[in-house]
Amino acid sequence: MKGSHSVKNVAIIGGTGYGAVELIRLLQSHRYMKIKQIISHSQYGDQITSVYPHLTEFYDDPMEELNINRLKDEIDVVFLATPAGVAKDLVPQFQESNVQCIDLSGDLRLHAREAYLTWYGKEAAPQEILDEAVYGLSEIYKEEIIKAKIISNPGCFPTSALLGLLPAVEHGILNNQSIVIDGKTGVSGAGRKQSQMTHYSETNENVTPYKIGKHQHIPEIDLYLSQVANEDIATTFTTHLIPMTRGLLCTMYGKLDKQVSTPEVIDLYQSYYETHPFVRIREEGVFPSTKEVYGSNFCDIGLHVDERTNQLIIGSAIDNLVKGAAGQAIQNANLMNGWDEKHGLYHIPIFP
Amino acid sequence: MKGSHSVKNVAIIGGTGYGAVELIRLLQSHRYMKIKQIISHSQYGDQITSVYPHLTEFYDDPMEELNINRLKDEIDVVFLATPAGVAKDLVPQFQESNVQCIDLSGDLRLHAREAYLTWYGKEAAPQEILDEAVYGLSEIYKEEIIKAKIISNPGCFPTSALLGLLPAVEHGILNNQSIVIDGKTGVSGAGRKQSQMTHYSETNENVTPYKIGKHQHIPEIDLYLSQVANEDIATTFTTHLIPMTRGLLCTMYGKLDKQVSTPEVIDLYQSYYETHPFVRIREEGVFPSTKEVYGSNFCDIGLHVDERTNQLIIGSAIDNLVKGAAGQAIQNANLMNGWDEKHGLYHIPIFP
Amino acid sequence: MKGSHSVKNVAIIGGTGYGAVELIRLLQSHRYMKIKQIISHSQYGDQITSVYPHLTEFYDDPMEELNINRLKDEIDVVFLATPAGVAKDLVPQFQESNVQCIDLSGDLRLHAREAYLTWYGKEAAPQEILDEAVYGLSEIYKEEIIKAKIISNPGCFPTSALLGLLPAVEHGILNNQSIVIDGKTGVSGAGRKQSQMTHYSETNENVTPYKIGKHQHIPEIDLYLSQVANEDIATTFTTHLIPMTRGLLCTMYGKLDKQVSTPEVIDLYQSYYETHPFVRIREEGVFPSTKEVYGSNFCDIGLHVDERTNQLIIGSAIDNLVKGAAGQAIQNANLMNGWDEKHGLYHIPIFP
Amino acid sequence: MKGSHSVKNVAIIGGTGYGAVELIRLLQSHRYMKIKQIISHSQYGDQITSVYPHLTEFYDDPMEELNINRLKDEIDVVFLATPAGVAKDLVPQFQESNVQCIDLSGDLRLHAREAYLTWYGKEAAPQEILDEAVYGLSEIYKEEIIKAKIISNPGCFPTSALLGLLPAVEHGILNNQSIVIDGKTGVSGAGRKQSQMTHYSETNENVTPYKIGKHQHIPEIDLYLSQVANEDIATTFTTHLIPMTRGLLCTMYGKLDKQVSTPEVIDLYQSYYETHPFVRIREEGVFPSTKEVYGSNFCDIGLHVDERTNQLIIGSAIDNLVKGAAGQAIQNANLMNGWDEKHGLYHIPIFP
Repeated sequence: MKGSHSVKNVAIIGGTGYGAVELIRLLQSHRYMKIKQIISHSQYGDQITSVYPHLTEFYDDPMEELNINRLKDEIDVVFLATPAGVAKDLVPQFQESNVQCIDLSGDLRLHAREAYLTWYGKEAAPQEILDEAVYGLSEIYKEEIIKAKIISNPGCFPTSALLGLLPAVEHGILNNQSIVIDGKTGVSGAGRKQSQMTHYSETNENVTPYKIGKHQHIPEIDLYLSQVANEDIATTFTTHLIPMTRGLLCTMYGKLDKQVSTPEVIDLYQSYYETHPFVRIREEGVFPSTKEVYGSNFCDIGLHVDERTNQLIIGSAIDNLVKGAAGQAIQNANLMNGWDEKHGLYHIPIFP
Repeated sequence: MKGSHSVKNVAIIGGTGYGAVELIRLLQSHRYMKIKQIISHSQYGDQITSVYPHLTEFYDDPMEELNINRLKDEIDVVFLATPAGVAKDLVPQFQESNVQCIDLSGDLRLHAREAYLTWYGKEAAPQEILDEAVYGLSEIYKEEIIKAKIISNPGCFPTSALLGLLPAVEHGILNNQSIVIDGKTGVSGAGRKQSQMTHYSETNENVTPYKIGKHQHIPEIDLYLSQVANEDIATTFTTHLIPMTRGLLCTMYGKLDKQVSTPEVIDLYQSYYETHPFVRIREEGVFPSTKEVYGSNFCDIGLHVDERTNQLIIGSAIDNLVKGAAGQAIQNANLMNGWDEKHGLYHIPIFP
Repeated sequence: MKGSHSVKNVAIIGGTGYGAVELIRLLQSHRYMKIKQIISHSQYGDQITSVYPHLTEFYDDPMEELNINRLKDEIDVVFLATPAGVAKDLVPQFQESNVQCIDLSGDLRLHAREAYLTWYGKEAAPQEILDEAVYGLSEIYKEEIIKAKIISNPGCFPTSALLGLLPAVEHGILNNQSIVIDGKTGVSGAGRKQSQMTHYSETNENVTPYKIGKHQHIPEIDLYLSQVANEDIATTFTTHLIPMTRGLLCTMYGKLDKQVSTPEVIDLYQSYYETHPFVRIREEGVFPSTKEVYGSNFCDIGLHVDERTNQLIIGSAIDNLVKGAAGQAIQNANLMNGWDEKHGLYHIPIFP
Repeated sequence: MKGSHSVKNVAIIGGTGYGAVELIRLLQSHRYMKIKQIISHSQYGDQITSVYPHLTEFYDDPMEELNINRLKDEIDVVFLATPAGVAKDLVPQFQESNVQCIDLSGDLRLHAREAYLTWYGKEAAPQEILDEAVYGLSEIYKEEIIKAKIISNPGCFPTSALLGLLPAVEHGILNNQSIVIDGKTGVSGAGRKQSQMTHYSETNENVTPYKIGKHQHIPEIDLYLSQVANEDIATTFTTHLIPMTRGLLCTMYGKLDKQVSTPEVIDLYQSYYETHPFVRIREEGVFPSTKEVYGSNFCDIGLHVDERTNQLIIGSAIDNLVKGAAGQAIQNANLMNGWDEKHGLYHIPIFP
């Protein structure tokens, strides 16, 4: 049986990953969504507390096997916190139902099927699904999200980069072909899977540039930047692994096409995000650090016009697991269901 | 004007410290307490966001100067998050009023004035205040806390150590003179003040034993252990600084006086804490790590009987800033005011 | 062809592990040993710089497949930096040769074959090999090492624990049945293999007790402690994973059987290690931190008599990859070959 | 008495800072330089081991007060590891002597006295000293260094940035007005002095942009870049504090003026640095991480031509305390005195 009018039943697919566990944490204080199923392909039958003892006494039920029909019967909102290549096959199966699908993977983010093939190395979802899915960058596509049934939740880097760049790009103050994005992320962005890059001994006390020139978030950033600018934009984007668990900062650079001062740019950004509670613009001379948004759904932005070089410098900080994943997914669910966008999400970051 | 029946007005003294900022974070979701004043001796007049930008849009008011009369008029609950030596002079000034005082410092924890002088190197609070103050180890002194007006909130190490030891001590299964407590704490326990020990470059990638044989938490642990055991107990207690911000683990060892198995000890602990929502006992073979309580008010405990040596090994993990400070202070305020003990505190820890 | 009288040819087996790579680093400045072969079972044929780019321009040769006969022909000293269960099969194959074998794994450390089976879960090496192998705790078994052909290099925890305990145990000042060892180690001790415990996101900002009551270093510590004491000793030993790459600290506790002061104990330890350049005893009131031995072959020891409880508290810090593995292996090779014990090893630790 | 022909006597001024302690570590294995005096303004009379216990048994002499005449009599090489504003007053006092001065601070790096005043906020050194001082970027100014008596040792960021940019700039393949430098540094770069930015609890698990648009290394980078390019270059340069102790990475971006491929750029860099042992160029597809140069004097460089945007991306990694400070200072001393440039410095980095 589906949830009542006021409380929606939720399923999370991909139960042993960090996306899922962060959804569980955030949904605990959500009054209108209730987790009914946590689905794990690899560990169904096990209690989630055997993987995550921190959940003890909060969620002791065993994880379940995927059963699409049961989901259609019982569930109102499905969060897909699965690796690339899973959601593209699952989402189409909910087409005939009323189930809201929010995909946290990259499967539905690129409109062109060839682009997905190029950057993800797999066959893309059916074109009609790609066409229907709404890109869930909550601040920018709010109107579309409110009416959507399928959400493609943005990647962590694109969330930070786009929120940091779009006000400037939309107002046409940048030379759009000069944009450089230097991304820095905590290790949890790589997920729970083990790899040499997530090995403590090699990541600690280290900064590691990775996937230079081939990160799958490049086409995602360029696509939505171009969409807003109404112009083909190719950015230069690099990513660096930082010895921290959570936190993501994009430092961005763009040649100014117009002469503007730092206070003017700050004004422009403040107006742009005036009605958006999760974006906070720092005052002149202050840039956000990632810890200032730790555990929260905020995107904090700092701005500086470098008069020596006529470059706009933008710093945009998020928690990659919250605004960059689970938090934004819930923000989108809030919008889709007519609840307050802030509900269950408007918490003070953990500091220190 | 004081708070209404249903919402109490709160003041926090010591506004720029980590205790205060954690109180602010936790009180944000508390429905029955509202922060009216944040008092800072060193920075009154400044906005707290100038020190802590992560609070932007949550608490933008300037910090205030201490004014006892205004506090007596306007405030119901005062949290003293001040360095050692401040609360002992302030708390007596609230004697004639109805203000509830919760002191997070060590000023009121030792009953004997000479003990305070010995371990803290300062003149103690008046004896009548020491006599009136109730030791706020919520799980153990619940009945007294409910009736108290002055709470001496326990230290971080004593909270972890006592919750880990008391069930065994109270049941008389240990040789009480054999107890060893090996404490490990994150750096935030040392507060926000700068010192060589909190310098990143020297604390990172390092484990540092400190204050060996002279930590001011020694007499606190011994006092309450002795009180429960009805016997003078002196423990061997060491502290180690660990390269992490939050988290505290006491690994404890005691010779068993009786022959008991690991499952029997686990049973004993589970019964002991059955009605206490913030203590979670791990199953056999599992010890808690500090990250499993990160940002939460939980105390997680693991137990093992080492049959080779007939020693009981206990691991007790808390977040030093929550259950070890601000969280337990709020738990005590909940008890003192007849609210649900869990209110505003029963959150899933942040993981990873 | 073997090395000349003055320069010995070296092979390292287990080329992609941390033990091997630390041997390579340390041997670079060794004038009497020269690496001729780096042998890797899993990656022979590959350049070691493809795994470890930091070796670029130092060791660009491909790794080789194991060939015992070639080793016997060309090599004087073999370092076995292999996982448990490999050396026990390889070392016997060098019996008829003059090759010196130094095994960094646990395969040859326990004298009783059943003990190995119990703690390692595998069939042990032949008894004659176990009998011939000398336990390479350089400071304690120096005379035997000088004459040895097979060295069983001690484990990291046993090195720290035994060097910290033996002077007290040998002088009979402790109640030997009361000894508690609380071990804290950096993550590199778990090697390069990936596991959930070495995953950055779960180890960072965390202290994790592990293998409580079942660590394979327990029988090793007890064996050599008992040997020196001439009495069966069972210690209580726990291990904790610390968010750092290198460094290991054992904090140890023992009831004093005699009345001694801290300065007297310090004197006793200083005399004990007077002729041993790699053990440094701290003065009264000072305990070593692990960073003070980082990258070096030192074992630094701090001592305190807790007069309240009549316990001796000992802190013993090493770099787990140097004195706890590769450094001590080279120290043993120096002793076996008549070179200065300090040769190639007597470096200032890296600080900060 | 000064050192003999073959061994030079060395003094280090600024004895309690990280620059000094790293000089001490590296000079331990230097056969031609011997430390005779460690001079500390704030702690002369104290043993350096009271500040740095890791030096125990290596350097137990007390630190000394500054005495210029004694230095002139006894010392051949003075390393000034002092805060900004000290060397500018001390170096002139050695003018009449034969003492070689190597200044690790920024005092002598800018040729124009007004530039120093603007960026450092202090009166600069006398112009004649600025004119005489040779900028000690060893790979670029080798010929001048060999003949110099006063060396201005480069800043940590400029060392990484200039070594990464100069081959491209000198070969004219970049649009020099488009250069963006995104700097990331470990905390030791801020020195041993305590500040909120070096506080463990606030720096750990955090990335902090700082001094955006006002870092004193900006004019230094631009000056030497312009000098080589024979053209006024203004770069856009930002700095980020990373939660690690050592390590510095500059990720750099420049629009390509010519069409070149990644392999062609790699070739160009390899030729440029062919005779320079401390610069290592990574092969295509690989960027260096900072840990791959940890504790060593290497500068490792990775290169990628982003064909989508026609940008050259350069990653340049150093250990900020070695190649970015003490190591390069010794490299310069080697060059000035006719010793092998690699002497005492050519060590394998510590990994992991």
